Amino acid sequence: MKGRKYSLGLDFGTNSVRTLLVDVKNGREAAEAVWNYRRGEAGVLLDPKDDNLARQDPQDWLDGLEQSTAAALRLAKKKIPGFSAQDVIGIGVDTTGSTPLPLDRAGTALGLLPPFRKNLSALAWLWKDHTSYAEAAEITALAQKLRPRYLKKCGGAYSSEWFFSKILHCRRVAPKVFAAAFSWAECSDYIPGVLTGRTDPLRMKRNLCAAGHKAMYNSSWGGLPDQAFLSKLDREMGRLRSRLYELAYPADLPAGPLAPAVAKRLGLPAGIPVAVGLIDAHAGAVGSGIKPGTLVKIIGTSTCDMMVAPLAKTVPDIPGIAGIAEGSILPGAYGFEAGQSAVGDIFNWFVSSFAPKGLGHAELTARAKKLKPGESGLLALDWNNGNRNVLADPRLTGLLVGQTLHTTPEEIYRALIEATAFGARMIIERFEEYGMQVNEVVNCGGISEKNDLLLQIYADVLGRPMKLARSNQACALGAAIFGAVAAGARLGGHATVEAAQRAMTGLKPQTFRPIAGNRKIYDQLFALYQELHDSFGGVVKAAKLGGVMKELLAIKESSIK
Amino acid sequence: MKGRKYSLGLDFGTNSVRTLLVDVKNGREAAEAVWNYRRGEAGVLLDPKDDNLARQDPQDWLDGLEQSTAAALRLAKKKIPGFSAQDVIGIGVDTTGSTPLPLDRAGTALGLLPPFRKNLSALAWLWKDHTSYAEAAEITALAQKLRPRYLKKCGGAYSSEWFFSKILHCRRVAPKVFAAAFSWAECSDYIPGVLTGRTDPLRMKRNLCAAGHKAMYNSSWGGLPDQAFLSKLDREMGRLRSRLYELAYPADLPAGPLAPAVAKRLGLPAGIPVAVGLIDAHAGAVGSGIKPGTLVKIIGTSTCDMMVAPLAKTVPDIPGIAGIAEGSILPGAYGFEAGQSAVGDIFNWFVSSFAPKGLGHAELTARAKKLKPGESGLLALDWNNGNRNVLADPRLTGLLVGQTLHTTPEEIYRALIEATAFGARMIIERFEEYGMQVNEVVNCGGISEKNDLLLQIYADVLGRPMKLARSNQACALGAAIFGAVAAGARLGGHATVEAAQRAMTGLKPQTFRPIAGNRKIYDQLFALYQELHDSFGGVVKAAKLGGVMKELLAIKESSIK
Repeated sequence: MKGRKYSLGLDFGTNSVRTLLVDVKNGREAAEAVWNYRRGEAGVLLDPKDDNLARQDPQDWLDGLEQSTAAALRLAKKKIPGFSAQDVIGIGVDTTGSTPLPLDRAGTALGLLPPFRKNLSALAWLWKDHTSYAEAAEITALAQKLRPRYLKKCGGAYSSEWFFSKILHCRRVAPKVFAAAFSWAECSDYIPGVLTGRTDPLRMKRNLCAAGHKAMYNSSWGGLPDQAFLSKLDREMGRLRSRLYELAYPADLPAGPLAPAVAKRLGLPAGIPVAVGLIDAHAGAVGSGIKPGTLVKIIGTSTCDMMVAPLAKTVPDIPGIAGIAEGSILPGAYGFEAGQSAVGDIFNWFVSSFAPKGLGHAELTARAKKLKPGESGLLALDWNNGNRNVLADPRLTGLLVGQTLHTTPEEIYRALIEATAFGARMIIERFEEYGMQVNEVVNCGGISEKNDLLLQIYADVLGRPMKLARSNQACALGAAIFGAVAAGARLGGHATVEAAQRAMTGLKPQTFRPIAGNRKIYDQLFALYQELHDSFGGVVKAAKLGGVMKELLAIKESSIK
Repeated sequence: MKGRKYSLGLDFGTNSVRTLLVDVKNGREAAEAVWNYRRGEAGVLLDPKDDNLARQDPQDWLDGLEQSTAAALRLAKKKIPGFSAQDVIGIGVDTTGSTPLPLDRAGTALGLLPPFRKNLSALAWLWKDHTSYAEAAEITALAQKLRPRYLKKCGGAYSSEWFFSKILHCRRVAPKVFAAAFSWAECSDYIPGVLTGRTDPLRMKRNLCAAGHKAMYNSSWGGLPDQAFLSKLDREMGRLRSRLYELAYPADLPAGPLAPAVAKRLGLPAGIPVAVGLIDAHAGAVGSGIKPGTLVKIIGTSTCDMMVAPLAKTVPDIPGIAGIAEGSILPGAYGFEAGQSAVGDIFNWFVSSFAPKGLGHAELTARAKKLKPGESGLLALDWNNGNRNVLADPRLTGLLVGQTLHTTPEEIYRALIEATAFGARMIIERFEEYGMQVNEVVNCGGISEKNDLLLQIYADVLGRPMKLARSNQACALGAAIFGAVAAGARLGGHATVEAAQRAMTGLKPQTFRPIAGNRKIYDQLFALYQELHDSFGGVVKAAKLGGVMKELLAIKESSIK
């Protein structure tokens, strides 16, 4: 195996860090190691009094980085004759996002410093933290009034999951943390900063992916939202702007060379290029071989739908699609990000709370497989965690209709899978309605590997073949691709992302194809799903039902005051 | 205890026969015995291929009559010093209904005869048999066209649960049974017929209650639907009319004296009066002390809401109220019957299929009690078994909205209880809208005795005190009251039903009163319930959602063909 070159993909997920060592010539995954976070519940710090809160301890990232990298290298040495850490030519990093954390002037995470060690607001604000929903609404309202162009790139509404909502909420609820923070960074900026020894907020290389999709960064208006706009939210938010960043970079560029001290701790060669970071889903799209016309679905607890279009082309602002940003997936292309706020999470919720003993995912799937489309008489909305696209409304809730006294758990389980398929179809139809033709759908993510029934239902509902990315670690593979490109052809890597994708990605042999009879029934059910969607989602203004879910929430909130 | 007189109430339920021996002077329940049916599943014969089918074996009735009466008499002899069967002065009978069965010329139940013993169509068609839904729609459509007055007395639609739907369905699916049947009788006619030895179809005394509420019998148009009308459904149905009955009688009249042979088998005095029968819910209303202005709710697997109004008064036809019939509850009064097709059945369905192990009704109720109204954010429609009133549409289905990833089983359990309360409020509001003022609500039935939470929620949702009938066996007590009146004052009974009610019925001391704060929140939730009700129930014609449940059923039916 002499002469082989490897890139290291580091994937910082919600519950763990994964290190994937990939052969840059053919994408072979030579070694893989996972380190599960130790703090909170599987790495997520929760507040029993507030369902919306989800934080993460940066120390888990630092521990996970060392442990998973060391484990992967040990494994490689054992498995690959002649392997040496010197064969690693580059490192790429993907992380969850938007997962911002406050930093001091020196670039140290506030949450790692003794005065703030136990302060949840000083830790990282995990992507799925929804405490900032009021601030998100405030930012959306202000942008509608003053800067409507900001919203056109993010589907019409700024999210409670995103950068500025979280920082503004921190300013409101934890002013001491806000005051102590010199700057804020995304996890996807901070990790490459740690690797390159450049966490100084003013020197750290920020990534276009998180900037464009989560922080309203766009070169057409000079980067981040302007100071006047931020000042209208809060004077201190305006002042913060100059301590954030002016420029953001695509992930095929190096963030810098691996710092010697870090290299030593990790057992890697000092000075090898570390790529600019990006968000995990976007890396997964790259690792799944995304290109114009290919929609990559990353199906896990939630779902991301990614597309790209050449920068040269004029691309539309697509209402209800969560994000459009330059260079956020592939350099030189617009990256489109859409998704569903809960997919696997809905199935997990149902199984853990409502399936009688003994009925787990496997057994429910086996039973649900025996049902024919439509025969349960059930129809659900997949909104248990709100609707990200195309309604961009996190406060919508779930719905199930059609229950009788004979309705079984497997019937509901199947209806929930179908609901997520209908939600997926809404997104694809919206893309195509605005001229983004979808020639193929490539799936990756945990559920796509495990659940044949789901893939068949998706094929039947979407009326398209469901292809599968070859790698089961598409995100980490995507990160490794960027590591290989940051290294460049000269060091044995690749000159471009496209070249690296050609060499390092592929599809699984199995494809799920639509079954005509099922498709026909699902077309009928989808028409009914659209009725529910538009009525309860408030799209049809005449229907009074549009207000039902919101009024229930208002009643809920006033009842528990 | 010498000199005390007793009436025997025989209550033929879905799963058992109950015999209640009641002191006619004060309503004291001296002895009670229950005999559970042996055939089918707890007395109900099912078809694994057809959820709609529910039949009953008349042999179970005959066995249950003997066994439960013998047991009650044995118990009375043990408990009451000096008791003798000679102290029993009358017998009343209530049964489920509409539960018709085919009879031969001699009045023998066809299902008891060898050629038909195993034929489900020749047994009794239990009240909850829904196989005749197409025939019900056909009868409704024909009546709309030719005899709209028929429908005005039964809430606007003839039900699949009722007499002629079932007989017409038998004619279609089991023509040999239909041909062998000289006549058909309700269980509530057949049992008094057996007791008096008068099952001859042309001599058996038929009851006004089943006739008026289930067979479109009304004195204003000469009894049963006319022959021309029935012939339009099917020529043989027209021919059958002359083999049914011309007159029906209220339950305070004797059907006849207890036949000597039967008296001997039961150990009772021969010749004591046996009252004309009636349907269980109506007997329950009488046993709960029904009078003008009092709505009696019988809350069990389903719910019945009963009211009366003096015959002297002009009473309205109330759209969406299932039945209005003369003398069906109290002689000399119009009886009104409304109800919900599933109440306890919905809770049972949820607990048996969706509550994780260990969570039974008691634990879920205890947990649900800790929740505040509105705090779950959930709202449900109570239509898992269709909507009897006020929509009269058995093909509607359940709905739940407001689920998040944090929704718990106890939250859904409470939402289901609340849904049945909202459904109950729809019925009361409809009564009052048409001038039937509800001065008090008296509850009886299994659930009302067991579930304090439900009664408090009902008080809060209905905004009225929930009173409780003193007897836990209100139906059997009602039957005993009719037995006492059939016996008459001369034999130590009572001259009128009102007099018997004054002597023999009462309320429990505990009353559930509305809590102002809860009531306010439930008023808001009820407004939303009405939105769902009217949209999915098809009341609001503009709302396209009215079709969703039906289209799902159409898809279901075509998918399983």
